[in-house]
Amino acid sequence: MAKLLKGKEVVDALNIKMANQVEVLKAKGVNPTLAILRVGERADDLSYERGAIKRCEQVGVTVRVEALPEDVSEEAFFEKLNELNEDDSVHGILMFRPLPKHIDGEKARNMLKAEKDVDGCTDLSLAGVFTNTNLGFAPCTAEAAMEILKHYEIPLSGKKVAVIGRSLVIGRPVAMMLMHENATVTICHTRTVDIPSITKDADIVVVASGQMESIGKEYLREGQTVIDVGISWNDEKGKLCGDVKFDEAEPIVDAITPVPGGVGGVTTSILVKHVVEAAAKKTV
Amino acid sequence: MAKLLKGKEVVDALNIKMANQVEVLKAKGVNPTLAILRVGERADDLSYERGAIKRCEQVGVTVRVEALPEDVSEEAFFEKLNELNEDDSVHGILMFRPLPKHIDGEKARNMLKAEKDVDGCTDLSLAGVFTNTNLGFAPCTAEAAMEILKHYEIPLSGKKVAVIGRSLVIGRPVAMMLMHENATVTICHTRTVDIPSITKDADIVVVASGQMESIGKEYLREGQTVIDVGISWNDEKGKLCGDVKFDEAEPIVDAITPVPGGVGGVTTSILVKHVVEAAAKKTV
Repeated sequence: MAKLLKGKEVVDALNIKMANQVEVLKAKGVNPTLAILRVGERADDLSYERGAIKRCEQVGVTVRVEALPEDVSEEAFFEKLNELNEDDSVHGILMFRPLPKHIDGEKARNMLKAEKDVDGCTDLSLAGVFTNTNLGFAPCTAEAAMEILKHYEIPLSGKKVAVIGRSLVIGRPVAMMLMHENATVTICHTRTVDIPSITKDADIVVVASGQMESIGKEYLREGQTVIDVGISWNDEKGKLCGDVKFDEAEPIVDAITPVPGGVGGVTTSILVKHVVEAAAKKTV
Repeated sequence: MAKLLKGKEVVDALNIKMANQVEVLKAKGVNPTLAILRVGERADDLSYERGAIKRCEQVGVTVRVEALPEDVSEEAFFEKLNELNEDDSVHGILMFRPLPKHIDGEKARNMLKAEKDVDGCTDLSLAGVFTNTNLGFAPCTAEAAMEILKHYEIPLSGKKVAVIGRSLVIGRPVAMMLMHENATVTICHTRTVDIPSITKDADIVVVASGQMESIGKEYLREGQTVIDVGISWNDEKGKLCGDVKFDEAEPIVDAITPVPGGVGGVTTSILVKHVVEAAAKKTV
């Protein structure tokens, strides 16, 4: 029986900490504010937006939704983005992507001020993850994985970690963040030969393959901690599943994040944490 | 007897290729130019400068040395840097660092235009290495290691690589560049437990520990390729040595870079290659 690394416990702890920080900031006259910049009404965006608004409300962070119509002109979009960049009362900007085709997404991504890039999507934010400096913010899912490991006091220094997946939203940044904590990291990907030999040799396995239930018992051994970043709808089982075969992994390993109820929920909290951090910089 | 991966052969091949490219550029009216921005007359800087000038001359790249006195004012320094940034006839800028204490080195580093950052020191250049996009240029030593592997046709895709060292000039960028070539990379560092078990499991070992002759036979096995990035003066032996104990490694492994005569000389060629690439972008 593995210990379940539940996201809710991490979220609760973060909420208490952030609510306190927000109170202190407000006493200093700073009202932490997240601006959400959304074009159109994609179901995914609306769902994430509702979650972010709820999490912000819980800790006293103000949310300002800037919803633009699907057919907004590129000019009007960049005008709005620029306005949010320049507005000192806005501390963080969550810009939903991909943007409609008629808006230059790459230009938009890097026009966003790194200091307000609470979603960690700009080149400067990614440079900060690579160089371990505060140029912007880490991608939220990668930091959520780190926050779970930290909350449950899983040792990292000197430990072997296998990261499965090399995307810019999770695999690569989490590998760097683990290395900055003195873990010895191996990044596995689609071209890696014999992944099980690498994962079995690791103390911690972070799975972000993007392939539902692709990691079974042959990849794992007792004593390990498994962080499952995947989340997909399994039609056959009629439920949400991770990238790990939970039923096979759970009896073997020491600790594992459930799906749902693991990394996913913490991601939104990290977004809010970044807004509070961005606001705190205004008081320095 | 290991095959010696000599830098000279790589430099010669690069020189021929670059000389042709420079000729084509000049025919189009573009005269590839490197500006060297140096403050004071540190021996290391002067030595690297002489090497860079020689290598540029060999392929027809123009060099413009901007040597400022050690006591140049911060204002005058930034004025010169800005001038080089804005000068369309300058394609690459090599700015010697560290700068004297009275000049803000961090400000200088990121004031440099990424498109002219042929030495790969700005945050945007590093972001480009992390994200595998052409935002700037990779640090020259990291790319020199890659160029040697490419020249000698050492397969990378699906291969295991152990990188020893996690600096921003070599360890971290070379790890990312190897991963972009589909290698499975493990980054080892001072906090890694049992490095020999990791290096022995690798097909390729890139050593950039910065510790002279620290990697001996207990780290290696037959069949491997070793890239030794280190170069230090060994007082006892009265000669230059790498981070690898060459005499122990050479009889065991398949292929190894000598020190001197390995990675070091290729580094300057990569700098020149970046200048030519930067100039070529002007003709697109």
